[in-house]
Amino acid sequence: MDRLTVVILFNAVILGLVTSNWVMEREENVVHTVDRLCLWFVVAELLANIYAYCKEFFVSKDPESNGRNSAGWILFDFFIVGISVFGSDTFSVLRAPRILRLFRAVSVSEWLRNTVESFVRLFPKMGGVFMLLGLVHYVGAVMATTLFAAEFPDWFGDLGKSAFSLFQIMTLESWSMGIVRPVREVYPFAWLFFVPFVIVAAYCAANLFVALIVDTMQTAHHGQEVVETDECRKEVLRRLDEIERKLNTRPE
Amino acid sequence: MDRLTVVILFNAVILGLVTSNWVMEREENVVHTVDRLCLWFVVAELLANIYAYCKEFFVSKDPESNGRNSAGWILFDFFIVGISVFGSDTFSVLRAPRILRLFRAVSVSEWLRNTVESFVRLFPKMGGVFMLLGLVHYVGAVMATTLFAAEFPDWFGDLGKSAFSLFQIMTLESWSMGIVRPVREVYPFAWLFFVPFVIVAAYCAANLFVALIVDTMQTAHHGQEVVETDECRKEVLRRLDEIERKLNTRPE
Amino acid sequence: MDRLTVVILFNAVILGLVTSNWVMEREENVVHTVDRLCLWFVVAELLANIYAYCKEFFVSKDPESNGRNSAGWILFDFFIVGISVFGSDTFSVLRAPRILRLFRAVSVSEWLRNTVESFVRLFPKMGGVFMLLGLVHYVGAVMATTLFAAEFPDWFGDLGKSAFSLFQIMTLESWSMGIVRPVREVYPFAWLFFVPFVIVAAYCAANLFVALIVDTMQTAHHGQEVVETDECRKEVLRRLDEIERKLNTRPE
Amino acid sequence: MDRLTVVILFNAVILGLVTSNWVMEREENVVHTVDRLCLWFVVAELLANIYAYCKEFFVSKDPESNGRNSAGWILFDFFIVGISVFGSDTFSVLRAPRILRLFRAVSVSEWLRNTVESFVRLFPKMGGVFMLLGLVHYVGAVMATTLFAAEFPDWFGDLGKSAFSLFQIMTLESWSMGIVRPVREVYPFAWLFFVPFVIVAAYCAANLFVALIVDTMQTAHHGQEVVETDECRKEVLRRLDEIERKLNTRPE
Repeated sequence: MDRLTVVILFNAVILGLVTSNWVMEREENVVHTVDRLCLWFVVAELLANIYAYCKEFFVSKDPESNGRNSAGWILFDFFIVGISVFGSDTFSVLRAPRILRLFRAVSVSEWLRNTVESFVRLFPKMGGVFMLLGLVHYVGAVMATTLFAAEFPDWFGDLGKSAFSLFQIMTLESWSMGIVRPVREVYPFAWLFFVPFVIVAAYCAANLFVALIVDTMQTAHHGQEVVETDECRKEVLRRLDEIERKLNTRPE
Repeated sequence: MDRLTVVILFNAVILGLVTSNWVMEREENVVHTVDRLCLWFVVAELLANIYAYCKEFFVSKDPESNGRNSAGWILFDFFIVGISVFGSDTFSVLRAPRILRLFRAVSVSEWLRNTVESFVRLFPKMGGVFMLLGLVHYVGAVMATTLFAAEFPDWFGDLGKSAFSLFQIMTLESWSMGIVRPVREVYPFAWLFFVPFVIVAAYCAANLFVALIVDTMQTAHHGQEVVETDECRKEVLRRLDEIERKLNTRPE
Repeated sequence: MDRLTVVILFNAVILGLVTSNWVMEREENVVHTVDRLCLWFVVAELLANIYAYCKEFFVSKDPESNGRNSAGWILFDFFIVGISVFGSDTFSVLRAPRILRLFRAVSVSEWLRNTVESFVRLFPKMGGVFMLLGLVHYVGAVMATTLFAAEFPDWFGDLGKSAFSLFQIMTLESWSMGIVRPVREVYPFAWLFFVPFVIVAAYCAANLFVALIVDTMQTAHHGQEVVETDECRKEVLRRLDEIERKLNTRPE
Repeated sequence: MDRLTVVILFNAVILGLVTSNWVMEREENVVHTVDRLCLWFVVAELLANIYAYCKEFFVSKDPESNGRNSAGWILFDFFIVGISVFGSDTFSVLRAPRILRLFRAVSVSEWLRNTVESFVRLFPKMGGVFMLLGLVHYVGAVMATTLFAAEFPDWFGDLGKSAFSLFQIMTLESWSMGIVRPVREVYPFAWLFFVPFVIVAAYCAANLFVALIVDTMQTAHHGQEVVETDECRKEVLRRLDEIERKLNTRPE
């Protein structure tokens, strides 16, 4: 645990205290001052990090692109801390993004970094399914808006509302009792739209999950093992070659 | 990105605009004209595709049956575009199928085509589970209609309503608070029907999902690897044969 | 498709027609007569099956225990058809079990039989998880009844009601808005009971699912392959033995 | 089934009877006496177990650390039985923990012990995901409290309530109809907070599940098999070595 981790954990507790009315009535100034100090520390640490990265990049021309000091994580930190600075000291609602600075913990902890990196690595592999899911949602939203906007403006009033309702239906939350049964009372054949949508969306979601399983499994218990097996096989073939060569060339 | 992809993406935006009252009040004619042009382009492209496929099929007698120009995808395009032409320029509700023409994106993009093809390939393997699921639904729908139609006509009034309610119960949406608890107040032993149904249906759904996982996994990290291993083993055995033969036939 | 399959499918249609008031008002006698004929056929076929099985068992003393004529499937048919005969021609509610005779399709179709058999084979492997799930449900039901019976007699009034409510909570249906939030208004610390229950039950359910995946996977893409590999390895070792033996015993 | 298993199962029935008003009105004294006897037996058995373990630990200095008599399970038993003794003979609500003594069945049955042990073994592997889930929940709870506490004190009034609501949202229970739609009527952009939370939380939960699958799979169908394969490969290489050595050193 380096200093930054300690500061972030401490800042997490402070930001939790801010939500408590009991504490804020008594010690608002102390809490705000400590929070400000934590923010300054995090910003200073980030600037030092960026400086070190740039120096490495421009001077030694040989930056390590793995781990915490890679360009990706620096950008992530910059973005997170930027929102968090912007969100400070304004009125109530806009103060919420301040808490986002806790996500710096992601780039500090190796475990969290690996977990997030494995998610990002997974994205390209799931490209086809994401595109299909997006297409199904877009087509579904346009159809639902065309069909049901007049009677159910709250759920399908415009493209955005339809997309939200379809996302809810994809998670299977209240899809039937909440949405489809009321719609069926006006349009009895609405199930011809919703039941296929549920099935296709569930299939796409299942595919995303399967891609996650397959990828994790390949990373986890293949890779190393397969390489070992291959080396072992090459070793066997190499020795067989040698034996054969000896059998051929020996004086007899 | 060929021209067709561009037209389909552009058409997607246009069809989204149609759902917006603000745009339609101002530029209805422009939007409809552009939409019509897109449709003509898609139809023309499809006809050219069909012509090329037929020529290939009847003249060279050696059509490539893989990829975008296979008979299956041509039929899919024909069906999708057909519905979409039929759905144009009629009154409001029937205009909805028009949006289906966006699904041509599926046959244009290789990623989407592969995703859909892998789904279709999966179907025969899951035959037993689909049949079991269908059987359980049919038997369940007949039983539920016989038992509960009199008291709950909205949910179990006829076979169709029962099948929809049982599909909802299979997705676990409001199955207990929404359906089974009200039914239990009239028929206290209704849980003897519904709890086994939930368990059996969840088991069948789980099986479909497992079939998807197993198939994806086999396609993904077996196939190539297994073939390599087999070839490697045959190579080892072949060399051992040769060594043995030499040991036998050498003059000693 | 043998005759039995045809009769069962035909009977399925007939039993579907029975639920339709429109048909029953017009042709009740015809439908009932045809249904009776189907039942007689199924019973006759079952008796013939049992006779053939017994003959095989007692006379040739060498019954095939696989496939459709195994003791297990005969018992299953006997049970299903027995309930179905018992359920005929009585008053409305008791007529429902009649439809169960359609489950004979399970023992007739090889696909369905394999699907069900793989489920039954899975049971012993999931023993520990089933026991844990049963234990968690029982302990949870006793605790919930002791704690909440007085205030929520509908949900936790006795052991049966508590077990049903906990099953509902395990499926995550309305667990929070429907059950836990109302309970928390009376007992603010009820979440200390329900949140761990949700986590443990979800973990057990996940384990059942994982057991299904692992078993299916082993059956699907191991088995044959592993056996081949083992035989191949034994072949390699056997040949190496032979080569070594030759090297040792040759006159030199 | 040793004596302890019998007593625990018998005690389970007794504790079930305690929840029945019908039984308690008639035979309260008998039931309580029998329950007390069971408790004494369980406590005595536990003390004997602890004595045996300590003797083994201090005298023979070579305790078996596997199975039922390991330090972990002794502590588990001690904790469970301790709560259960503490919970006896007080007023109604506090009598509930008494039932926890049934969990001694976990340490008695080998199946249950293995199931629980495999869960505990899994924990460290899922460390990164648990930390991410905790971080997302904490950040989400602070943000939700800051943003929505004023308008929705029941759901997001303080950190605890927010955390419970977010846990509910993670399980997808009534997340949209129950929580997000009402919130959106006051804050139309609330979906910018909730939809990403649903996606991230579902992704983390999926990851926990995947870790469970991968671990179970490695334990189940690797392990033994991989070891065998490795030994087999070493055997092949060892023999090849020997053959080569013989070819080299033979007098020719």
